[in-house]
Amino acid sequence: MRIGILGAGQLGRMLTLDGMRLGHEFSLYDPAGKASAGVGTIYNDPDGQHLATFLNETDVVTYEFEHLPLDLVNRIATEKPVHPVPRALQCCQNRTLEKALFRDLGINTAPFEVVESAEALQAATQRLGGRVVAKSATDGYDGKGQAVLDTPEQAPQAWPRLGCDTAIAESFVPFRRELSIVAARGQDGEMAFYPLAENIHHQGILRFSIAPAPHVTPELEDQAQRMIRTLMNELGYVGVLALEMFETEEGLVANEMAPRVHNSGHWSQNGAVTSQFENHIRAVSGLPLGETAALQPTCMINLIGETGPVAEILRLPYTHLHLYGKAGRSGRKVGHINILADSLEELRWRAMNTASLLPECPEFDWRP
Amino acid sequence: MRIGILGAGQLGRMLTLDGMRLGHEFSLYDPAGKASAGVGTIYNDPDGQHLATFLNETDVVTYEFEHLPLDLVNRIATEKPVHPVPRALQCCQNRTLEKALFRDLGINTAPFEVVESAEALQAATQRLGGRVVAKSATDGYDGKGQAVLDTPEQAPQAWPRLGCDTAIAESFVPFRRELSIVAARGQDGEMAFYPLAENIHHQGILRFSIAPAPHVTPELEDQAQRMIRTLMNELGYVGVLALEMFETEEGLVANEMAPRVHNSGHWSQNGAVTSQFENHIRAVSGLPLGETAALQPTCMINLIGETGPVAEILRLPYTHLHLYGKAGRSGRKVGHINILADSLEELRWRAMNTASLLPECPEFDWRP
Repeated sequence: MRIGILGAGQLGRMLTLDGMRLGHEFSLYDPAGKASAGVGTIYNDPDGQHLATFLNETDVVTYEFEHLPLDLVNRIATEKPVHPVPRALQCCQNRTLEKALFRDLGINTAPFEVVESAEALQAATQRLGGRVVAKSATDGYDGKGQAVLDTPEQAPQAWPRLGCDTAIAESFVPFRRELSIVAARGQDGEMAFYPLAENIHHQGILRFSIAPAPHVTPELEDQAQRMIRTLMNELGYVGVLALEMFETEEGLVANEMAPRVHNSGHWSQNGAVTSQFENHIRAVSGLPLGETAALQPTCMINLIGETGPVAEILRLPYTHLHLYGKAGRSGRKVGHINILADSLEELRWRAMNTASLLPECPEFDWRP
Repeated sequence: MRIGILGAGQLGRMLTLDGMRLGHEFSLYDPAGKASAGVGTIYNDPDGQHLATFLNETDVVTYEFEHLPLDLVNRIATEKPVHPVPRALQCCQNRTLEKALFRDLGINTAPFEVVESAEALQAATQRLGGRVVAKSATDGYDGKGQAVLDTPEQAPQAWPRLGCDTAIAESFVPFRRELSIVAARGQDGEMAFYPLAENIHHQGILRFSIAPAPHVTPELEDQAQRMIRTLMNELGYVGVLALEMFETEEGLVANEMAPRVHNSGHWSQNGAVTSQFENHIRAVSGLPLGETAALQPTCMINLIGETGPVAEILRLPYTHLHLYGKAGRSGRKVGHINILADSLEELRWRAMNTASLLPECPEFDWRP
């Protein structure tokens, strides 16, 4: 079977590296013409000249990136099976739809209003009360297109910074920590859930994920699984889905979802029985899902801007390096390291030590 | 760094899949024109037309296959660094040189004589006494080019079956089991040793490897490490080397070596901290070696002839599937399965169950 992937960055690369072991072949199609995956048959195709060739040779199409032209994906879906379903893409491209989906499915999310002007943002902030986070309805990722308002009067300054026509104003969630759940759903409706990950951001970019997240009660795990199960069943989802959540005094609050393999699931490459990449490929190619249990406590550290001292990293006996073959550039994800340990305390020391070697990496001051 | 691999079969494929994670790029050059790797930049080049291009783009050259034209490899070595050293290739292409190397280095091996005719084979069998195994000096693998003689009088029938001008006649070793050791040596002389594997053949082809092999005393492990360390140091070896051995009442007897990643090391992909493939690439690219410790008892099962029922295999929560993207054909290695378990007893049941699903797979009647 030849699997087509829309998008050809590091996620497409890692999907291909794991998917080839299942005997599949891969074609990666990048409508932005910025392919970096370096594996599979690559179509760098900003002009759409190679779309027919790509579709002709693929048996099924998936994607590694949610900011794809929706009309392109819908068009492809008339010719080939597309997993996950394009509606998932549509919801994830637009926070208005995504928040409405959460609300309609009874998934706990922060109170919100849709706003289309500075005045509307000010009024919404007044109504919501307290601190408000404003987010561009489209195109936001890695903390871009966001503003925090402590008072309604900050709306006139905040609005132009969002750079959009439509935004979501939502109550700030006083959270203990950010958690995420990654799950897979097969073509027969079978589901598999990875243990929750605890995520630490710095300057709006994910830096560290610890999985399985410690201090997750069975109730919390169950709440997370119910939320993502509800989403996957509603969407008739096939593939890997990620859901970012806030942990609060009253349980979990859903923040946003990603219809693809997710940075907070990279730990599974070394820390789980089956990686999220393999499970995504198993799902979209109609194979049974693999075991998602964790092998050991794992910490994923993103390499941002540059790869750092590769030989020094590899000399540590507990590191697993994953480089993306991309040139270094400030703020760019160029790789990650998975660190395993027998205990959380040992994991903490190993991650601190590894982080201290890396340029542009914040201190790892996490405690289990 | 772009690494060139001579040979483009499943070993080149798995070297590439693991090596890309270290940020390297790969070109695979097949002088036999039978590339099946399906990854990296492939040169299917029986006429030698693309050799210059291949060499021009690669920084270092390694190989996945020992039956390469030696003059080709020597020529390449005048232009680019070749790891492992071509002398290793030369020794492994010729049992006469290989046995002499073992003997000269004091590595315990079965008594042998070089023979070049049926008469010489008969006389050597007489002198060696007891059962004798005759092996073609060159081109033998997977049990081909071999004959067993119980009496000297069988030489006239045995000789033509070897199909060669020069052969080795060696005393049959009454062994308990076949073991192998896989080790890596870096460019700075650093070495790393995998735990020994126990190997089970059927019809001359490796079917099962169990690692770490049970009932390996520290003395046995030490003897294996001393043998392979001696070989690597003598050769100035860089990369992964495998040594097949017989376990006897009196300890280990070296059988043959392979200057490359080895089928009996495939278990390390899922069962060890660092796979043999990653360690080979680390070594030839001048990086520090990775930890070789086993994570869990592991059994590797080769898929011979056809892949079998892929979905059924993947439904078992303890299997890791590795397919080579090759068409099925009787006797051909098309993939393997790594099975992990917490205990040897559980491993045995899991391997028995998995083997029972596979076509052309002998029963797994091993006991720890």
